[in-house]
Amino acid sequence: MIDPVERAAMARARELGWSALGRTSPNPAVGAVVLDTAGRVVGEGATQPPGGAHAEVVALAQAGERARGGTAVVTLEPCDHTGRTGPCSEALLAASVTRVVVAVPEPTGLAAGGAERLRAAGVDVVLGAERAEAAEGALAPWLLGVRDHRPQVVWKVATTLDGRVAATDGTSRWITGPDARAEVHRLRATCDAVLVGSGTVLVDDPQLTVRDATGADADRQPLRVVLDRRGRVPATARVRDGAAPTHLSSAAGPAALLAELFDRDVRRVLLEGGPTLAAAFLTAGLVDEVVVHLAPQLLGAGPSLVGDLGISTMAAALQLTPLDVTPLGRDVQLRFRPTRHTGGAPQPEETTS
Amino acid sequence: MIDPVERAAMARARELGWSALGRTSPNPAVGAVVLDTAGRVVGEGATQPPGGAHAEVVALAQAGERARGGTAVVTLEPCDHTGRTGPCSEALLAASVTRVVVAVPEPTGLAAGGAERLRAAGVDVVLGAERAEAAEGALAPWLLGVRDHRPQVVWKVATTLDGRVAATDGTSRWITGPDARAEVHRLRATCDAVLVGSGTVLVDDPQLTVRDATGADADRQPLRVVLDRRGRVPATARVRDGAAPTHLSSAAGPAALLAELFDRDVRRVLLEGGPTLAAAFLTAGLVDEVVVHLAPQLLGAGPSLVGDLGISTMAAALQLTPLDVTPLGRDVQLRFRPTRHTGGAPQPEETTS
Repeated sequence: MIDPVERAAMARARELGWSALGRTSPNPAVGAVVLDTAGRVVGEGATQPPGGAHAEVVALAQAGERARGGTAVVTLEPCDHTGRTGPCSEALLAASVTRVVVAVPEPTGLAAGGAERLRAAGVDVVLGAERAEAAEGALAPWLLGVRDHRPQVVWKVATTLDGRVAATDGTSRWITGPDARAEVHRLRATCDAVLVGSGTVLVDDPQLTVRDATGADADRQPLRVVLDRRGRVPATARVRDGAAPTHLSSAAGPAALLAELFDRDVRRVLLEGGPTLAAAFLTAGLVDEVVVHLAPQLLGAGPSLVGDLGISTMAAALQLTPLDVTPLGRDVQLRFRPTRHTGGAPQPEETTS
Repeated sequence: MIDPVERAAMARARELGWSALGRTSPNPAVGAVVLDTAGRVVGEGATQPPGGAHAEVVALAQAGERARGGTAVVTLEPCDHTGRTGPCSEALLAASVTRVVVAVPEPTGLAAGGAERLRAAGVDVVLGAERAEAAEGALAPWLLGVRDHRPQVVWKVATTLDGRVAATDGTSRWITGPDARAEVHRLRATCDAVLVGSGTVLVDDPQLTVRDATGADADRQPLRVVLDRRGRVPATARVRDGAAPTHLSSAAGPAALLAELFDRDVRRVLLEGGPTLAAAFLTAGLVDEVVVHLAPQLLGAGPSLVGDLGISTMAAALQLTPLDVTPLGRDVQLRFRPTRHTGGAPQPEETTS
């Protein structure tokens, strides 16, 4: 359906989408590549922050006249509606591309019709090229939002080999080394919000900002969210230091909290809370991805990485599907997707496509 | 010091040593390769079970006349004493090899002198070629025994992602999948003994034999050892089923137990006991390697993989040095070496060379 040159362009488009993740919500993090008639890359683009240009428009602007007769490769079907920006379908026609390769068809009624309009104008349109790869990548949070009206939840936890997240005296710094901690900042930067419970604030007093290797705050910061039903977070907590926006929530539970965040245009949340909050989200079936930073240490005692899940026998264990394993210095990152929810009948595998 | 052909032969010799591990104690698991004058492999050998031929003798026998003028590549310095077999130095001279490449010099007074004798006879001898690789490989248990007069201890544990080795109702089968369980049988086959505590026998009633993919017992079985100070293991326990030799020990602790096993010619023990026994060995500084089979599951409750280590603060955590990470089906194998002992001042890194 698509040739090797277009395949490479689609892989690059997915990368471009990833590069924009965390800066586009409530819009999808789309990537686009424009190829000229000879198949050379003449334009690249990713979704700009809300109000800014869509990925195709950025890529077409870069390509200029070289787009004429060429191909646009895009992770999401070009929109056909006039929102804060004009329809991408029109921009593609104006640039005189003759072929458009799309990974994921537009799932919302509002913006759909782009492919149809392009085809009506004589453009060769391929829909669904390497669809799963794009849908499980940078588009996943937005697609989940369209379907379930809640943000994607990524639970990140740093643990010793024996599943401890702190020693018995409460100390937890540092379980993991500098490479793993840098990765946490990169991960935060892909999220619209970072979430902890009030217990974590009271014990660890984290700042929850995105910092670079020098310790400097990044220019764009995710929303810091603390679930603080009892109003325990003091005004002096670092999470309220003004270095980034902060939201103290008194939501009744995970689902209510996610609804609150969705309304604030949050589409991807990094759950960095302690064992109790993690257990609440897991038990509610509201964790979409698990990122474990495993440190080569043993403590023998101390709080476990996840609280009571209501599981008392091995056969009822919460099963995860492994995604990948990545060394981070002396530590190891393991990523998983939960395959079913806890405390009930097995549920169908989580799909974000 | 050695050329690429000899380097490849030494890598093969190390593999041959590994293939013999678990069948040679109290002798070292040595590997040997004989190259002819053109550098072609004309003989391979590994240490035979006690009373049988040494690795060099096996390799020379295979090479026959083709060894004349050639090179012997061996992981351990050829012995120069007459034990149950004749001196390997003599066998090498009789075969008229003109060069001998050795990884690890013989550390015992008893068998030393092989290199000297060969040199005196005009043979070109290289000592210490890729020494560390061989010393940390199949020779490690034997070298540790020479130095510390105790067996090497490999602690193997299967755990959920949250460090649980069983659910609260005691069920633990199966935490890991078939690939990981097959790997445990391969690991057992490299050991002279498999060790658990009486608690594990009472709860899980394991057979602790080496079985192949069809479930059939292997022809050679490691000694099954149960630390059973209070005589709690019933005569009906599977560990006493006659399928393999069994030793019920009433040793006072890890060090005394290892001394007992060393006297029984055990040089490599697989510790498969529960959290209490693991903690006792770790606290005593008597674990040389940690093999963790991590399953993609969460339990939220249940016994942890290691009992109390007397550690109450993060800075005192028992540090491990990562060796490697290997996927085993859906599970992941992580191997480590403890870098210091618990509950005291940092100790020098464990070296087996």
